Order: sequence, then C-alpha cells, then structure tokens
Amino acid sequence: MTTSKKRVEALVERVARRITPLASEAEKQKVFAREACARLEEELSGYGVKMHFVGSAARDTGLRGDNDVDLFVSFPRVLEEDFIVKETKRAAKKLFDVGWVMHYAEHPYLKAVVDGFDTEVIPCFEHDEDAPLKSAVDRSPLHMQYLEKRLSARQKRDVRVLKKFLKNAGLYGAELAVQGFSGLLCEYLVLYYGSFYELVKAAESWRPPVRIDLEGRSNKGFDEPLVVIDAIDANRNVAAVLSETNLHRFMALSQAFIEKPSLKFFFRKHVKPTTAQARKALRERGTFTVAMRFKAPQLVEDILVPQLRKSERGLSRQLEVAGFPLLAARSFIHEGKCFMLFEFGSEERPTVQRMRGPFAWDSASVTRFSRAHNTPLKGPFIKGERVFVEVKVKERNALRFLKKLSKNTDVYASGSYLEPGLRRAKFLSGMELVKQAPVQAYDFFKRKEFWW
Amino acid sequence: MTTSKKRVEALVERVARRITPLASEAEKQKVFAREACARLEEELSGYGVKMHFVGSAARDTGLRGDNDVDLFVSFPRVLEEDFIVKETKRAAKKLFDVGWVMHYAEHPYLKAVVDGFDTEVIPCFEHDEDAPLKSAVDRSPLHMQYLEKRLSARQKRDVRVLKKFLKNAGLYGAELAVQGFSGLLCEYLVLYYGSFYELVKAAESWRPPVRIDLEGRSNKGFDEPLVVIDAIDANRNVAAVLSETNLHRFMALSQAFIEKPSLKFFFRKHVKPTTAQARKALRERGTFTVAMRFKAPQLVEDILVPQLRKSERGLSRQLEVAGFPLLAARSFIHEGKCFMLFEFGSEERPTVQRMRGPFAWDSASVTRFSRAHNTPLKGPFIKGERVFVEVKVKERNALRFLKKLSKNTDVYASGSYLEPGLRRAKFLSGMELVKQAPVQAYDFFKRKEFWW
Repeated sequence: MTTSKKRVEALVERVARRITPLASEAEKQKVFAREACARLEEELSGYGVKMHFVGSAARDTGLRGDNDVDLFVSFPRVLEEDFIVKETKRAAKKLFDVGWVMHYAEHPYLKAVVDGFDTEVIPCFEHDEDAPLKSAVDRSPLHMQYLEKRLSARQKRDVRVLKKFLKNAGLYGAELAVQGFSGLLCEYLVLYYGSFYELVKAAESWRPPVRIDLEGRSNKGFDEPLVVIDAIDANRNVAAVLSETNLHRFMALSQAFIEKPSLKFFFRKHVKPTTAQARKALRERGTFTVAMRFKAPQLVEDILVPQLRKSERGLSRQLEVAGFPLLAARSFIHEGKCFMLFEFGSEERPTVQRMRGPFAWDSASVTRFSRAHNTPLKGPFIKGERVFVEVKVKERNALRFLKKLSKNTDVYASGSYLEPGLRRAKFLSGMELVKQAPVQAYDFFKRKEFWW
Repeated sequence: MTTSKKRVEALVERVARRITPLASEAEKQKVFAREACARLEEELSGYGVKMHFVGSAARDTGLRGDNDVDLFVSFPRVLEEDFIVKETKRAAKKLFDVGWVMHYAEHPYLKAVVDGFDTEVIPCFEHDEDAPLKSAVDRSPLHMQYLEKRLSARQKRDVRVLKKFLKNAGLYGAELAVQGFSGLLCEYLVLYYGSFYELVKAAESWRPPVRIDLEGRSNKGFDEPLVVIDAIDANRNVAAVLSETNLHRFMALSQAFIEKPSLKFFFRKHVKPTTAQARKALRERGTFTVAMRFKAPQLVEDILVPQLRKSERGLSRQLEVAGFPLLAARSFIHEGKCFMLFEFGSEERPTVQRMRGPFAWDSASVTRFSRAHNTPLKGPFIKGERVFVEVKVKERNALRFLKKLSKNTDVYASGSYLEPGLRRAKFLSGMELVKQAPVQAYDFFKRKEFWW
C-alpha cells in the first residue's frame, strides 16, 4: 500500500466514525420503515401492491442525522396513474394522521414527517422486464435490488464518506439549484472504482468527457461531460444533472485531497461571512451592482430554479447586446424571495450601439432594416456577410435600462411563471443586497474554491 | 429581352463610350509596346528570350487614361532567376535611359515611366507544359494566350464597364489595402457569365461560398468565399485576395444596380468630406477615439499593409482582453505615415479584470496561476473547465494603457518591420485625427455603403 493510500484509508476511517448513523438510530429507522410498509401493504392489499423500502436509509449509505425514509408502493401495471396516486393518498392519510403534502416531480408523491422521520410515500408500477417503464420512479426498487446485492459493508462506508466529502464542497445533491452528485451517482461511482480512495485517485486524471458503464452494455451517445450509465437502464445517464463546473470542481478537489489529505475536506469550518465583510468586498470591487428581488411563486424548486436561471440569462443577453459592460450575473432563492444579481463594469454603457442586421444579400430585409434605422450615426455598412448600423442609445444608465427592460417580459425569454414577479420586482443597490443576503452577496463578490 | 436587360444594355453602352480608351490612345500604346518588345528581344537575343506584351492594354480591357504597359521577358528555363533579373535590368537601362526602379513582389521586376507610359518589364521563364512553374509571374503570358483567344470585342467592353463599376464602389484592385477584384478576375467573370449584365444578375443570387471553374477540372478545396479557378492553373484561386466583406458588397451592389440601373453606379460624385463634417461626426458619437501615428517604413504596400493590420489586431486583442470597451479599430497609410485608430465606448475600463487561467485539472499550472495572482479580488474559482481570478486593474485609462502597451511590441504580435515606429508613435486625440486625415476619419465614424 502506498503511503498516500494508507493515509487516506486512516482518514476515511476517522471520518466514517463521525458520520455513520449510530446503530440505534439506524435500527429505529428500519423498524419504523418496516412497520409502515406492512401497514400500507395491508391497507392496499386489495390491489396486490408490493412495498419497497429503498434509498440510502435502506442501504445504509446515509449520513448521521439524515432522517429520510423512502417507501415505494408498487402497483400492478394494469392500473392508471391517477388511480394509484389517489389510493396511496387515501391509505397514507388513513394510517398516519399527519399533514401529508402532495409533491409533483416527474411523478406525484406524498411527503410528511412521521414519528420524526422525513417520510416519502411514492406510488409506482411494478417492474416488467419485457415492457418499458411506466413511470420514471419505477426504477427505484430496481436500483435497490441491484445495489443491495453488490455493495459491500466497506463500500457502504465509502459511499457515506464520499457524500460527506461532496457536501463539504457544496457538490452534493442532484437538485437543479446544486447541479451536483446524487446519492445514486455516489453509490455507482464507489461500486465502479471499488473504494473512495480509488475513485478520488481516478478523478485526479479524468479528462472530460468521462464515460463509465458498470454493465458495459450501452452504445448510446451522451452530451454530458460525465456519463455514468444507469446499470438498470442503459439509456439513462445518472450524472446528467451534474454541471461541467461541478465536475471540474470535483476533479480539482480530488487532486488537492490526494496531494494533502486532511479533515478539512470533510469538516471544513463554514465561517458565515458577516455583513461587514460583504460590504467590504463590494466596496473593493468598485463595480456597479443591481439586484432584482421579488416574491418566489409557489413552485417546487426544480421548476422554480430553471425558470429563474432562464430569466437571468434572458436579461443578461439583452444587457450584453445593448453594450452594457456586464461582468457577472447570478440568481438564487433566499427567504422565500427570488434574487437576480447583475454586476456591471460601469454604470453607463457607451453612447453608441452597434446593431447587427440581415445578410447583405437579403435585399428585402436590408430595406426593412435600413428603414427601421433611418438616422443612424454610422452605416448601413457591410462587415463580413452582414449589414450593420450604429445608433445613438437612448438610455445609457444600466439601472434605468434594466427597470424598463425587465417589465417587458416578452422581449427577453423570461420564465413564464415568474412574469408577474419580474414585472413588479424591487430594485436593490449593491449595499441593499449586502444587507438582505450577505452570505450570497459575499460569495458573488469573493467566491474562492476553499481547497486552494 | 427583359426590360431590365435592355435598360442595363443601354446603360453599359453609354458608360462604355465614356471609359473606352480613344482609338488613337490605344494605338499609340500598342506601337510603343511593340517597339519596346522588339528592342528588348534584340538586346537579349543571345539568351533566346521571347517578349510578351500582356495585361489589359494588350487585351483592350483597360480604362481610358490607364497608362500601364506590361512587358514580359521570357527566358529559357535553364537560367537562374538572379541572372535573368540582372540581364533584364542591364538591357532596360541600356535601351531606355529613364529611372528604372526595382520592385520585389513574388518576383523582382522593373518599373519606370517611358514616353509617358507606366511601363513594367518583368523577367520570367518560358512555359513548359510538362514542368511546374518556375515563378508565379510565368503565368501571365499564358493568361494572355488564353484570354486573347476567347474574349470577344463585346466582352472586352463589358470587362471595362465592370472595372468601372467596381472602381466606383472602391472594390477594384487586388492589392492588400483594397482586397478587391483584380483585372484578371474581372476578365474571367465576364468570360464565364458571358456579359456584364449576366454577371451582376448572377451575383444577385450568389450565396457564398461560390465556386466558378471555367475549365471544370479542379477538385481542390478552397477556403475563400469566392473561388474562381485559374483556367491555366487548377490549383490557384484567382479571387483569393477578395475579402468576404467586399464579396458581399459586390453582391449587394449588384442587387441595387439590377433593381434600379443608373449612372451613379459608374460615375458617383465623390464629395470629399470636409474637416468640419468629420468633426461633427466625431462629436455626434460621443465616444473616445485614440489614433497612433508613425512614419511608414520603406516597404512595398503589400508588405506594409499586412504588417499594419497585424499590429492593429494585436493591440485590439490586448485592449479587449483587458476589458476596454473597444468599438472599432482601423489602420491606413496616409501621406507617408501609418495611422492606427481605436474607438472606445468610454475612456476608462472597469476597475475589475477577469483573468482566465489553466484547466482546473492541471494542478501544476493552477498553482503557478494562483501564485501569480495571490491577492485577487475574487477567486481562484472554477467556471466550466477553467480556473479564473478577478483582479483590480492598475491602469483604467485607455490612452495611458495603450501608450504603455504599444511600446511593448513583443506582448501583442506586432508587425516586426513596424516595431521602431510603434515604439515611437505619436498619439492623437479624435480631434487631431480629424485635422490630419479628415477623409479617413469621416469614413471611420460615418461609413455608409453609397447605394443604400
């Protein structure tokens, strides 16, 4: 064993001791899950359902303090989705008198805290090898079967350590606000490489695109920089949601860790930046920051986040086309409110804006374009294959321009659910932003990868 | 005949009457050329040379007032280039006692005004069908043979009209300062399409890349947007020097002409913009213009122009990377001086500059990069596959930055012949530029294609 491997192994063991759920805790969780399964199976026995206790709690790959219990109710394939959702809801409400809430992801499911556990009850259809999946969630019981058979106790430990490693760097979670590593992806990676050490050692020399196929049976092409073929569905990339940036963060993080393994890669002190620090970061930059703020509509995060990003990109694009010196943009949700941040190199754009027109040979379009800009400062002239004019801008100020632009939600590909919010948004200065969301503001102005 | 064709035909005839060299003029030119050929052939008869009178004067495709006489001295292939150049020089000096000057293009040649004619004497090697060309100029006698046989009197008229059409729009000439249509290209185009009318009619619906192969025997791929295979050399594109912009200008001009044929497409009034107009154009824009000026070194234009462009592009690139809002740049030669113009949206760049670093996985490079920027305003952080930092800029002012930058000629891929000039350049404000080169300044600030 190399020194490095030994050091990592010792460290993994130390970390594992701190993050593995206590035996009593794990046992209580399983007892609760088994009992709930039995009661639901009984209540829905008329339909011939089978219950599955799945996920990290079932496979012992969760972290201490995780409290999630995922229960799948698998119905015969002859039934309709609406029906199985309705019946599951009825049964859950009857058996457990708690505030069940319906959620809608790819598929509807129920969520509530039951006996202190964050419980999800997910109706699905039973698997049939000869038929296509009826619903995306039908895979979960199959993942359970696949992994339970293959993951050793030591690998389960390594999955937990990997999750902690990722969480510590903000890379854990497949939700769109994170675009990181899902629990299932962690399990597949440890299974493929054999251990946490071998994985991070391999990740050091990954050069995207990286393709991993546990069962070696997929020919499908994927666009993502990391492709991990789902062992139970050769057409699916388990790492689809992982962003290129986060993949590269993981690779750089793995290098830094292998070079100098230490506890900070698992238990970094998160010192929350103060308002004063955020204010200082803002002042140091000497740039011009505008923030838009509006109430977040009632949407699940996986719909809200892409809508917010889309609107941010749409506005950014218009600002850039208009010649504003946009340095950075970001959006996030904080205390029930949507924030969009735009940082400019200066408060004003140049007096002149270049407008790109049609192809020079498209004379009908050129005529329309010339008429639309009949008193240009310069042009129409040809550059390359296009016609251009330069016009005097009407509004030079970035804030006033953004205020007007953001209300015209049809001009910039805004997220449709956000339109009412966007039209009524409050505009904050950099200083106001710092007061209302100092942590996010600090990260926006200062961001530094912690391991460098 | 369509009305349009008739109208164009009538117009072509009117234009031709004004631009065709007078019969007496053409005759005098030919008599001179024939006599000069005879004398040179005699003087160099010991080597078995053949003389060729070629070019537009020989083929009657020149414009009235053109005064060029091109004489090729074709030597046997066994001789050396140095030797034939030396002997040609000796003979020319002995026979014509004028101030011959050596020029060096692809090949050395002699130039002088003899009896009022702009005479070029160009030594070359005789053609051998079974051997490769010894020199690029050896093609000219072959072009003469090829075109003389094929161009009708009417087509020669149309070549002249086409040249005038192009000259009037600033599109005539294959020198690098123009990047337009050469005389040979005009002849090939008229030969291929049959007439001026058919050419401009076709150009209306060209969609680059356009490929024309008179002899239909080239398979070679070319990158240029217009490819006209040389009839006597299938590996050569006669339109290689034509820029994409000028090709599109020609297409748009052809459309405008076909739509509304008129004399202005041949005899446009060039109203020279006044200093006052240029000053007004500068003021209207409200931008920040800096001009660099230095003495043009003694170089032929086809070397000087690319050197100047290269330096301009090198400086532009550095200014953009540094975050200056560069709107446009241009360079030109005027009264023996090189000018480089840079127009900025504002006089200052933002306080913050983003620096792109190495790939995130290249840890040795990342370490070096982080050390080089050890007190960044932001970062190092990963975005996509790269590492970035943001730093506080030292010099915000565009003029001061450019003054310092331009002296460091090794930083920005400058043209090597221009380095002494670049290092000692004078810096002019927009107003000073307007005073020193009002025509070029006006075009830089106002440029409009005349036919729109």
